[in-house]
Amino acid sequence: MKLYGYWRSSATYRVRIVLALKGIDYDYEPVNLLKGEQKNSAYLSKNPNGLVPTLVTDDGDALNQSLAIMEYLEESFPDPSILPGDLETRAKTRAIAATIACEAQPLMNLRIQKYLKEEASFDDNAVKDWLSRWPGGAMAAVEKMTAETGGDFCVGDTPTMADACLVPQWFGALRFGIDLSGLTRLKKIYEHCIALPAFENAHPLNQPDAPKG
Amino acid sequence: MKLYGYWRSSATYRVRIVLALKGIDYDYEPVNLLKGEQKNSAYLSKNPNGLVPTLVTDDGDALNQSLAIMEYLEESFPDPSILPGDLETRAKTRAIAATIACEAQPLMNLRIQKYLKEEASFDDNAVKDWLSRWPGGAMAAVEKMTAETGGDFCVGDTPTMADACLVPQWFGALRFGIDLSGLTRLKKIYEHCIALPAFENAHPLNQPDAPKG
Repeated sequence: MKLYGYWRSSATYRVRIVLALKGIDYDYEPVNLLKGEQKNSAYLSKNPNGLVPTLVTDDGDALNQSLAIMEYLEESFPDPSILPGDLETRAKTRAIAATIACEAQPLMNLRIQKYLKEEASFDDNAVKDWLSRWPGGAMAAVEKMTAETGGDFCVGDTPTMADACLVPQWFGALRFGIDLSGLTRLKKIYEHCIALPAFENAHPLNQPDAPKG
Repeated sequence: MKLYGYWRSSATYRVRIVLALKGIDYDYEPVNLLKGEQKNSAYLSKNPNGLVPTLVTDDGDALNQSLAIMEYLEESFPDPSILPGDLETRAKTRAIAATIACEAQPLMNLRIQKYLKEEASFDDNAVKDWLSRWPGGAMAAVEKMTAETGGDFCVGDTPTMADACLVPQWFGALRFGIDLSGLTRLKKIYEHCIALPAFENAHPLNQPDAPKG
């Protein structure tokens, strides 16, 4: 199995966390987003949207989209599970993951920020307001959602797909200066997560394509 | 089971399609987005992000996020299924759904368009470029993805979760004037879908909160 990704990509980071939680061996192939390698025709044949990650199975199937890849890994390697057993709690876990993947990250990612700055002439304050409103607002919603579901982790006391989305989003939000100071429950969950070896192993700075030093 | 939604909301439309495909009875409670009813405290207690849809189960669980709700309906009412049996094909189905739900729709939805026009002073041409670049680009990627998976529908010859995402996105894209003329495979799939009674039943104009006439 080969994961095509980029060290700092939030969606790649999600998949690395799940691979590590499940103890799955894989090869890693960096796709340098800053050099535009995601737009090479060889890569586009695996991922028509020119996004990372792509997971290529041993049979050569190229799988796109981190939410779909996490579900695939859960179905292919069910133990340990990243979804609770109860149907309603599974739905709430996926709802947290989707709030991050559909409401927070798409409005924060690099290509959108680049467009806002370069094509729409957003100045620093305008970018800050955008990030606070959309990704920041979605994170505030996740803080409320975890009031019902949360324990040491987003849902109960074991890591799930929701935590695999939360940690990269938190990491990216800090990087972009989004104010997370009111999100005390999520901060504790984030700290529980990053103390685990699987999350440490998946951390952007621990990837082969991260800058040295 | 009660669905809180809005007739023209793309994410609500997805869930209505799946409920109709599976023949599930439900009550419908309109949330008027133009009147800001999604920001009422009673509604926010069910959906902290102030988004539609929310599905409230007979036991009172409030479920958010259309992708999570569709997975819940699939697990709770497995027949007829909206996901193929093979693990890799399931992943490709979910990847199409996620491309629409994570890359296309979040950049097209009403609150973002309102922000761009009212807070970022985008003129008509700037909005058009934005919509063509992001939601339009994601739909072009889906056209390519279905080259591998598609038949009469996005994946093979029966409707799946991917079609439940495609049809509302297509409907919304037409409404906002996004050029879909090159997407010939998706156009045929869209036409196959809307010919089915379940898709007709779920259509925005056939909802109780749609304007009359």
